[in-house]
Amino acid sequence: MSTYCITMQYDGSRYNGWQKQGNTPNTIQEKLETVLSRIYNAPVEAAGSGRTDAGVHALGQTASFHISSGQNQYSCQELLQLLNQYLPLDIRILQIEPKEDRFHARLHAVGKIYEYRIDNGAYADVFLRRYAAHIPDTLDIDAMRRAAAHLIGTHDFKSFCANRRMKKSTVRTIEAIDFQQEGTLLTIRFSGDGFLYHMVRLLTGTLIEVGRHQRKADDISSILDAKDYSQVTFTAPAEGLFLVSVRY
Amino acid sequence: MSTYCITMQYDGSRYNGWQKQGNTPNTIQEKLETVLSRIYNAPVEAAGSGRTDAGVHALGQTASFHISSGQNQYSCQELLQLLNQYLPLDIRILQIEPKEDRFHARLHAVGKIYEYRIDNGAYADVFLRRYAAHIPDTLDIDAMRRAAAHLIGTHDFKSFCANRRMKKSTVRTIEAIDFQQEGTLLTIRFSGDGFLYHMVRLLTGTLIEVGRHQRKADDISSILDAKDYSQVTFTAPAEGLFLVSVRY
Repeated sequence: MSTYCITMQYDGSRYNGWQKQGNTPNTIQEKLETVLSRIYNAPVEAAGSGRTDAGVHALGQTASFHISSGQNQYSCQELLQLLNQYLPLDIRILQIEPKEDRFHARLHAVGKIYEYRIDNGAYADVFLRRYAAHIPDTLDIDAMRRAAAHLIGTHDFKSFCANRRMKKSTVRTIEAIDFQQEGTLLTIRFSGDGFLYHMVRLLTGTLIEVGRHQRKADDISSILDAKDYSQVTFTAPAEGLFLVSVRY
Repeated sequence: MSTYCITMQYDGSRYNGWQKQGNTPNTIQEKLETVLSRIYNAPVEAAGSGRTDAGVHALGQTASFHISSGQNQYSCQELLQLLNQYLPLDIRILQIEPKEDRFHARLHAVGKIYEYRIDNGAYADVFLRRYAAHIPDTLDIDAMRRAAAHLIGTHDFKSFCANRRMKKSTVRTIEAIDFQQEGTLLTIRFSGDGFLYHMVRLLTGTLIEVGRHQRKADDISSILDAKDYSQVTFTAPAEGLFLVSVRY
């Protein structure tokens, strides 16, 4: 058996997210598995590092898969070229690495970086309309930074988890939240050991509310303490979110 | 009569260029005139600073139009909001200024800046696929700079004009050609007093050939001297070209 980890970029605009689910057509996982199965002439299943929602983009999503010994053996370079030849232009494979057979892209991930991009201009920039959320309101970035400081560290993020039936631990560690402004584009970069369902969009939505003075920066602590999803009201839109990289 | 100059941004991907021409549907001029005519409830004609080809983008195209005294008079701010309300999301009005009645966006333009963006990565970046030309070849940027130096100044650019029946002067002045590299994205910025039909794409195509060592940097002088369009063989693709700004 051979095991590989691929690193890929995708424009999520026209997809129903990463994960194949029942009859939902047009997912990125489905596109990847279809092309892999065609290349190997046998069914191949790919495990992503995690799901991305419909409309969410990736600069460095990872996925692992196994090829049994009886199948064609391609070099990583050959496989990279074949995948990019057959995949649509809005999905690109950046790298393929051989891994130990027990490697799994989700189970072995130890950290992730996400970026959320906000177009803060008066009118939505035409080149950002699919790649940033348009928030024309005046944002108090200093208040957003103070609010973000309350999120750094290890906390129970149950209030920021949209899966209400989550049975596993909702404790996560956020290592850093960095703000970058370039013209009217505001980018918030979240680094952590892992993120819950909708967590980055819920965190960003709450930071935007702080930026608009709809909430105070210090409210973050009480929202965390409440461990109650109903405390969080604004899920920032999918098109602003990018999965930047996965750490192993 | 009132006369206005608008500055606009557009994503040219799905349009047949700026100019309304006979039965060609889906041009940016047509979209703008349709919305203006609806706002004023009377036909309005808009004069662009120049044509952009199908697929070419604008960060700062300008257009002028006249409104007769009998029509509704909106303030620039009202007009800006109305236009952005009715125009599709891939066309945005950035600014509207009142002008003297003899003002004409094309006839009074004294300079323009264009940018050509090249995605020089091994595989086409998914986020640049509509906004840069993918040229995966190794490019000798130093040779391209040396070639560009021959283009600076006042020359007869007939060899770089795709309109073979051009009756007016083909003499133009290029003030600067600047190269900027950011990761795998190479941007070439052309500033000049005006550009002929396809001129920026023909200049860029030739610079790319120099970068690939298909031509020598010093060949540029003989191409200019030939005043012969058949000397130029590569028109760089439309999707990499942006009209950045128009100077008055």
